[in-house]
Amino acid sequence: MTTAARAVPSRLLSQRDLDFLLYEWLDVLQLTRLPRYLDHSRETFDAAMQTCQRIATEHFYPINKLLDQEEPRFVDGQVITPAPLKQSLRVFCEAGLMAAGQDFERGGMQLPYTLEKACFAWFNAGSVAAAAYPMLTQGNANLLLAHGSPHQISTWVEPQLEGRFFGTMCLSEPQAGSSLSDIRTRAEAQADGTYRLFGNKMWISGGEQDLSDNIVHLVLAKIPGPDGRLTPGVKGISLFIVPKVMVDAQGRLGERNDVVLAGLNHKMGFRGTTNCLLNFGEGRFRPASTGALLDQPPGPAMAGAVGYLVGEAGKGLACMFHMMNEARIGVGLGATTVGYTAYLHALEYARSRPQGRPPKGKDPSAPQVAIIEHADVRRMLLAQKAYVEGALALNLYCALLVDQAAGDPQDAVREQAHLLLELLTPIAKSWPSQWCQEANSLAIQVHGGYGYTRDYNVEQYYRDQRLNPIHEGTHGIQGLDLLGRKVVMGGGAALQAFAGRVRATMAAASGEGPEWAAQAAALGHLLTRTLATVTRLHAAGDPDVTLANASVFLEAFGHLTLAWIWLDQALAAARALPKASAQEADFYRGKLQANRYFQQWELPKVAAMLDLLDQLDQTTLAMQDAWF
Amino acid sequence: MTTAARAVPSRLLSQRDLDFLLYEWLDVLQLTRLPRYLDHSRETFDAAMQTCQRIATEHFYPINKLLDQEEPRFVDGQVITPAPLKQSLRVFCEAGLMAAGQDFERGGMQLPYTLEKACFAWFNAGSVAAAAYPMLTQGNANLLLAHGSPHQISTWVEPQLEGRFFGTMCLSEPQAGSSLSDIRTRAEAQADGTYRLFGNKMWISGGEQDLSDNIVHLVLAKIPGPDGRLTPGVKGISLFIVPKVMVDAQGRLGERNDVVLAGLNHKMGFRGTTNCLLNFGEGRFRPASTGALLDQPPGPAMAGAVGYLVGEAGKGLACMFHMMNEARIGVGLGATTVGYTAYLHALEYARSRPQGRPPKGKDPSAPQVAIIEHADVRRMLLAQKAYVEGALALNLYCALLVDQAAGDPQDAVREQAHLLLELLTPIAKSWPSQWCQEANSLAIQVHGGYGYTRDYNVEQYYRDQRLNPIHEGTHGIQGLDLLGRKVVMGGGAALQAFAGRVRATMAAASGEGPEWAAQAAALGHLLTRTLATVTRLHAAGDPDVTLANASVFLEAFGHLTLAWIWLDQALAAARALPKASAQEADFYRGKLQANRYFQQWELPKVAAMLDLLDQLDQTTLAMQDAWF
Repeated sequence: MTTAARAVPSRLLSQRDLDFLLYEWLDVLQLTRLPRYLDHSRETFDAAMQTCQRIATEHFYPINKLLDQEEPRFVDGQVITPAPLKQSLRVFCEAGLMAAGQDFERGGMQLPYTLEKACFAWFNAGSVAAAAYPMLTQGNANLLLAHGSPHQISTWVEPQLEGRFFGTMCLSEPQAGSSLSDIRTRAEAQADGTYRLFGNKMWISGGEQDLSDNIVHLVLAKIPGPDGRLTPGVKGISLFIVPKVMVDAQGRLGERNDVVLAGLNHKMGFRGTTNCLLNFGEGRFRPASTGALLDQPPGPAMAGAVGYLVGEAGKGLACMFHMMNEARIGVGLGATTVGYTAYLHALEYARSRPQGRPPKGKDPSAPQVAIIEHADVRRMLLAQKAYVEGALALNLYCALLVDQAAGDPQDAVREQAHLLLELLTPIAKSWPSQWCQEANSLAIQVHGGYGYTRDYNVEQYYRDQRLNPIHEGTHGIQGLDLLGRKVVMGGGAALQAFAGRVRATMAAASGEGPEWAAQAAALGHLLTRTLATVTRLHAAGDPDVTLANASVFLEAFGHLTLAWIWLDQALAAARALPKASAQEADFYRGKLQANRYFQQWELPKVAAMLDLLDQLDQTTLAMQDAWF
Repeated sequence: MTTAARAVPSRLLSQRDLDFLLYEWLDVLQLTRLPRYLDHSRETFDAAMQTCQRIATEHFYPINKLLDQEEPRFVDGQVITPAPLKQSLRVFCEAGLMAAGQDFERGGMQLPYTLEKACFAWFNAGSVAAAAYPMLTQGNANLLLAHGSPHQISTWVEPQLEGRFFGTMCLSEPQAGSSLSDIRTRAEAQADGTYRLFGNKMWISGGEQDLSDNIVHLVLAKIPGPDGRLTPGVKGISLFIVPKVMVDAQGRLGERNDVVLAGLNHKMGFRGTTNCLLNFGEGRFRPASTGALLDQPPGPAMAGAVGYLVGEAGKGLACMFHMMNEARIGVGLGATTVGYTAYLHALEYARSRPQGRPPKGKDPSAPQVAIIEHADVRRMLLAQKAYVEGALALNLYCALLVDQAAGDPQDAVREQAHLLLELLTPIAKSWPSQWCQEANSLAIQVHGGYGYTRDYNVEQYYRDQRLNPIHEGTHGIQGLDLLGRKVVMGGGAALQAFAGRVRATMAAASGEGPEWAAQAAALGHLLTRTLATVTRLHAAGDPDVTLANASVFLEAFGHLTLAWIWLDQALAAARALPKASAQEADFYRGKLQANRYFQQWELPKVAAMLDLLDQLDQTTLAMQDAWF
């Protein structure tokens, strides 16, 4: 880290911690040996992160409260967002950051995904509501790069990477919510190969805004069969590009497509991100052109929003999972950073606020001490540190798995990274959403009454955070994904890969001394128990019973995962400690103490959850509607 | 309960549950055998509760969102609150409810405290921000009835009971926060026996408003010694009445006293309750009269806010604890009701919202089911039920202890009730603040994305609730009170009284069958462990170590207490079940299932906390500032 950064610690994130995680723990410089990243080095990585810290600090953090106070307004069918938001996103785009992970030939920086996420963390920490626009745009572009045609990529991806168009994902509908098999949006095939879409989409983040020249909606819809009916279930779902504004063969913007804002949702937090109900094909606009893809002269004006099929018909959900998985890790990272910045705000407050005296300092005429001197305040800060630094480590670990799954030269490494990523994605989304909310609550508590007032920042973080266990798949959905699919896929291959990683950490720790051996043994005991619990739950023979406590399993597995992540981080810190300067030693000792906190205070919670799961507890399943 | 209430269940509270708790579990009709309550009966109690349900439903609930959206404004030194708030509080006062617990001869209803709290729960559930004004006024009046002179009572209490004056408590100061020994407000004695106060008070709920003719501030301040210095520590603290407007010997309002609003705190929730920084004696007003107490002609205009000493000089904190203890139970009840109404909102939503199909119902063309059919939604609702009904039971149990401590004819009963009340007050305040917040979070989660929008009510409840672990003594303060004072007072007498109650419940449960015996045994095991943990913690020989984990002890003891409360409730339900109608049987089965949930899912958390405490864990104490 730079001396300047040390002199004025950031309230957003700790670059020292990012450096530790990237270089000392994950060894991301290993990626620079891959052909794709040969031009990269510690210097280029650091330069990218410094740029992001600077832009986030100067352009995102200062508007974060404004975005909360001046919610986007819906005026005459248009959305009005505060002008500074547009300016901040412009700076982001002009720095080339929308394409940070893309190929040099696309104008990108060709950063590894891990570095791209480390960079993006600064923006999330600066203003998670502002950062949602680029997060969705990047996910949209990445999906199309993977599944779109060359023409679709040149028409819709390139303007997104330049920041001229922004992107969305349109899955939910008012009557379907998380139950995607029940979506009713229809996509009617046209003779020219395009589609006309009719339906409503709910909870669309960035679904309408005045920030970009165009909006690229990725829309799940069903193509009616010959009888005009929609196939029930997820098998009938296809994926479509539906632009807000039609684009001609030269990439010029044309007439409005029939995608209309029906209403904005007014939220408790995350207010700077518009959240929309969109109507497709309600008839307000009747586009004649079918756009660039077919390069044909305009036909007659017709009803329906023009859409372009992405990939194969009926395989839309599989394509969309590309973006959903990325968005889930993205939501997890957003949750982490909202917790992280709140923690740093609380730490700063605790160091500067004098109040009271410790139990042994009873002399009431002695000066008051800074509240960080009180054991209970230290407890709250240490818990926050353990939650937010642990969550950041988890998110970056998953990002490295993305890099490894995509680009490692060895088949076995790629395969194992893919398996682990599948297993850990629900954890990467849900654990930070839950525990960084606890960190946000503790950040308020450290501030006392002030924390609850809008003069300080931590109350907004608490409100912003509460969305994270809901959007991109609720906690309950993540639990079903983990217990119902991920732990059993490939005959439990992902779970075995995970167990192998945990055991490797345990083996390394066991040789470091008695405290380490005890921590490794406790972790190993609960790992073994967790594997047995999975077997027991799936042997129940009744999917209702297996899945009744899926949320508890999610929480148990999440805490187990974080205990492993912490133990592994602590090993890296312990090895660096003997050679460290005094100031650096403080950093490493903080890591060791946060690990102790996690193993001592948090990991034991797993045992109680496994006890419950092992009983195939049916208390909640047996509860009847009439008994409430 | 009435048939009408059954036909349209209230979204605020369950009167059926209140009836169960009061009549079937606590047997509050026992109080009608006491001379003070001879005029009361089931009929008068029910009539009072029905009146409160009606007024809360018609006048409080409808303004709750308005109070959140139209925050009190500070205009030209005045506070402007929304007009409907004034009207609603007027209805409350005109129904005589400010004096519900007071003597008939004071114009009161002479209701037992337990019934007064059951009645007041409706107003808290209707609008906790509106209910804060009468809650504080009643607490203020009760303190003065206990510690004020007859003249003080006639001048300040009677107008409060009539609802013409409202009351506050003024403890915190900007530089002192929870550390009351550091307050600096000075009270300078005058020749006529009155005082002049100079200082600033922070976080004063209802400290300024346009709702009542006058405001009676109860203010902690220090009287300087002959050397002009303030005595350090809490021993120097005295208590004063400081009115907003002077009152003459005939009770007529006169000139303004020098209590001036310096600013309103803008909060995340609880927005309808003004929260003020008040300046005393800054010189804006210079009252000449010293008021009714001395019945003297006005003297020269002087600096300082006129104040009247309550009780003895230097004993102010002890007097104030009368109001603080009541306010702590009041905050606990407010927390409970905010959780309770959110739960009922979530229950209604879960019954009416169709979405998805259960794991075994895979046919995607089948209709969607109401989300209450999903095991994870039932889990969330059952958890909420266990938290909020458990919290209400705890609060009413404590209210009955107030009645018993004040009015039972037997010395031993009064003494034991007093001990238990002292022990349970920190739990009655902290447990609902923590776990009904969890209920509020689950109420949002049940609603999915809707729960996070301001179109629904549950997001406001979540914001309102977050204040409760802070005001009237933070969670940390409650932990220090419980572990540092309450469990050891009188040689552990309160703890022994508590253990006796728990063991009585265990003994009763043990004879009811194997499931009951197992629950009683698990509870007994953890009770024994908790008593041993107290001994171990206090044997540490170092108060810093003893108290380092006081918050964990608070949580462990709280969960143990609630497990006992639930087991005891369940026994009452089980005994009523055989004779119950089908509909009534559903109610009792719900109680039994919520008890199962608590014993099975929640109580085991206590073991992990005791494990930690038994190790005299010093992880947080050892953490250094520099390591963060």
